[in-house]
Amino acid sequence: MPPFDVPEGDPFGPHNLPYGVFTPPGGTARTVGVRLGAHVLDAGAAALALGSPYASLLARPTLNPLLAAGRTAWSDVRRALTAWVTVPSHREAVAGMLHPLSEVRLHLPFEVADYVDFYSSEHHARNVGQIFRPDAADSLTPNWKHLPIGYHGRAGTVVVSGTEVVRPSGQRKAPTDPDPVFGPSVRLDIEAEVGFVVGTPSPLGRPVPLSAFRDHVFGLCLLNDWSARDVQAWEYVPLGPFLGKSFATSVSAWITPLDALDEARVAPPARTHPLLPYLDDSGPEEEPGGYDLRISVAVNGHVVSEPPFATMYWTAAQQLAHMTVNGASLRTGDLYGSGTVSGPGARERGSLLELTWNGREPLRLPGGERAFLQDGDEVTLTAWAPGPDGARVGLGEVSGRVVPGA
Amino acid sequence: MPPFDVPEGDPFGPHNLPYGVFTPPGGTARTVGVRLGAHVLDAGAAALALGSPYASLLARPTLNPLLAAGRTAWSDVRRALTAWVTVPSHREAVAGMLHPLSEVRLHLPFEVADYVDFYSSEHHARNVGQIFRPDAADSLTPNWKHLPIGYHGRAGTVVVSGTEVVRPSGQRKAPTDPDPVFGPSVRLDIEAEVGFVVGTPSPLGRPVPLSAFRDHVFGLCLLNDWSARDVQAWEYVPLGPFLGKSFATSVSAWITPLDALDEARVAPPARTHPLLPYLDDSGPEEEPGGYDLRISVAVNGHVVSEPPFATMYWTAAQQLAHMTVNGASLRTGDLYGSGTVSGPGARERGSLLELTWNGREPLRLPGGERAFLQDGDEVTLTAWAPGPDGARVGLGEVSGRVVPGA
Repeated sequence: MPPFDVPEGDPFGPHNLPYGVFTPPGGTARTVGVRLGAHVLDAGAAALALGSPYASLLARPTLNPLLAAGRTAWSDVRRALTAWVTVPSHREAVAGMLHPLSEVRLHLPFEVADYVDFYSSEHHARNVGQIFRPDAADSLTPNWKHLPIGYHGRAGTVVVSGTEVVRPSGQRKAPTDPDPVFGPSVRLDIEAEVGFVVGTPSPLGRPVPLSAFRDHVFGLCLLNDWSARDVQAWEYVPLGPFLGKSFATSVSAWITPLDALDEARVAPPARTHPLLPYLDDSGPEEEPGGYDLRISVAVNGHVVSEPPFATMYWTAAQQLAHMTVNGASLRTGDLYGSGTVSGPGARERGSLLELTWNGREPLRLPGGERAFLQDGDEVTLTAWAPGPDGARVGLGEVSGRVVPGA
Repeated sequence: MPPFDVPEGDPFGPHNLPYGVFTPPGGTARTVGVRLGAHVLDAGAAALALGSPYASLLARPTLNPLLAAGRTAWSDVRRALTAWVTVPSHREAVAGMLHPLSEVRLHLPFEVADYVDFYSSEHHARNVGQIFRPDAADSLTPNWKHLPIGYHGRAGTVVVSGTEVVRPSGQRKAPTDPDPVFGPSVRLDIEAEVGFVVGTPSPLGRPVPLSAFRDHVFGLCLLNDWSARDVQAWEYVPLGPFLGKSFATSVSAWITPLDALDEARVAPPARTHPLLPYLDDSGPEEEPGGYDLRISVAVNGHVVSEPPFATMYWTAAQQLAHMTVNGASLRTGDLYGSGTVSGPGARERGSLLELTWNGREPLRLPGGERAFLQDGDEVTLTAWAPGPDGARVGLGEVSGRVVPGA
């Protein structure tokens, strides 16, 4: 009997059911899979075997058709999948379609349309401000409390967890250098983030209000926004990060539907400044916009930080409303990152820049000290959220190993 | 007899042959077309009728298959098309496939993968520096002469010429405002640019050298990077432009292949700073990297500026080498803009910001003064380049009319 019955307390039980795209053992084609414990259900094959109307969304090499199907379809498909892995007669029909996770190949689960990255942790923004502008009167820029600051990143270099990250080369210039020098980055860093995946598109010229967040956003995943701090420092004035970020952004192979995270919703931190109406989520009718995701950052298997996503100042709904308030359209597959997640504690910071205070206080790892990443280092983000009846909802890990450039 | 013989001096003669995507009169499907004078040749239908092996690249609803086919195919297809519109026997076979431009619908000619915008005119950068940082010792930032500054824009809001531009709303804050206010932009501007279209992809982790520019870039087009200056000014520190730009970027319906612009190549301006090797195009073996494109900017039919593209400090080949030097991959359909094209003269500037010196010296138009754009204003960019035997090579126009938001 295939292992439908995941162990008690497994964060990938039938209450979770995140979506991915995989190639079954011995196969070559890609299809949509759903994670159950340490196994993957071939959702496309299951839908076909059961004569499900959702085969057209699941027997596909990417999640994009499911993403584009809209909120009602997302709920319907999730209900069907829950039945397939819990109702005995359905279990029997799909039993041969469960594969051990260790035997499948996982792929980037959706085609990324546009990729936007925000900067929405107040603790992160204040840490960065104190590190780089120690003499400023306020560690936040004047706009920070009025809008979720963001910028566009490179969609074509979003890679799935497990993809090696080639150390980027680029220009850097220390204050003491008369001219910039070129070479492999010597300040390679991570940013622990949560990525939100847009399903339902929106037309050009029509802002998406706060209240329509759940109609447009399908789910979320962990995201590592790899950053070459030395490249970034030299290039970013006046138009923002470019090559310091564009070499790789890693996302989990598993997209957790928002429907699995209802119990994780929490109110964001109290707002210290009044918000313009399109961002104001303080009304009594608003649903709580935060998510209580407990992230863990490990370097070479050693946990160095546990950033709490619930502390993010700006919510994903506010980010979506802001991103479209100028009439910018949404496309299926748009991905936006929360920005580095950092909590108030010294071991709750989501980047090495902050954890080592710009390299001045290196981390002590079993294998030696780390200010920034060395070749061969592997960084893994994991997370869980409160689920129904005390269960935990696990997010798929995002992992990547640094390798030297050619 | 259909009008194969375009008038003497027509900048869209058989020496040009730019590519677009159109719907023929009375039809509903899209296919690749080639412009000849005031007509469009249905290149897909012609290829099928002539039994051409290139039908699989031309009888398609987007240019992406042709873009992906690579440099040798680009030359071969161009040679075939030239024969079809010049050799009498071929002309006869495709005569019924020429449609008046005025009777077809033109579409966005390719699916945009990533969109990057540079900032490579020294005159533009100095004008902007003088306007916004009048007290700075140097109007250029310290990095400007060492690398082509750029950033990622929103690929999903790249629209084809003729698409109306909805005036964006957003936050703005004048120095005298205690808090930001929200509303339609009151400083809506243009940026006259040239866009470069990537055909051949490149793998992650492998920089594309200067010498491989022509292997990867298929062609170019005019581009208008619409900009809400008030939104941009409030949002852009520290991560760069976002909503001030992401509401719309207009491109021409016609992509001019680089093969049509060999006579337009010119050396870029003399470099005032030594360049790192990956950007150094001063070697005797290097081909000239500039293009002598004469741009014209018209507001409501009145020419207000003639920016000379030959004055750009950084070339498209340097921009491509820089964009990939960190290992970022290229995809078919990547688009990158040159940055606002401004020459040294007062009527050679590519933005209203510069032409009116931040609104202080409004333009006098037949219909009244303009500091920034009013609803109903139509902006049109056109351009030509030197071609073979004294001919001109026309670039397809890019035009857009501003309409109020809903």
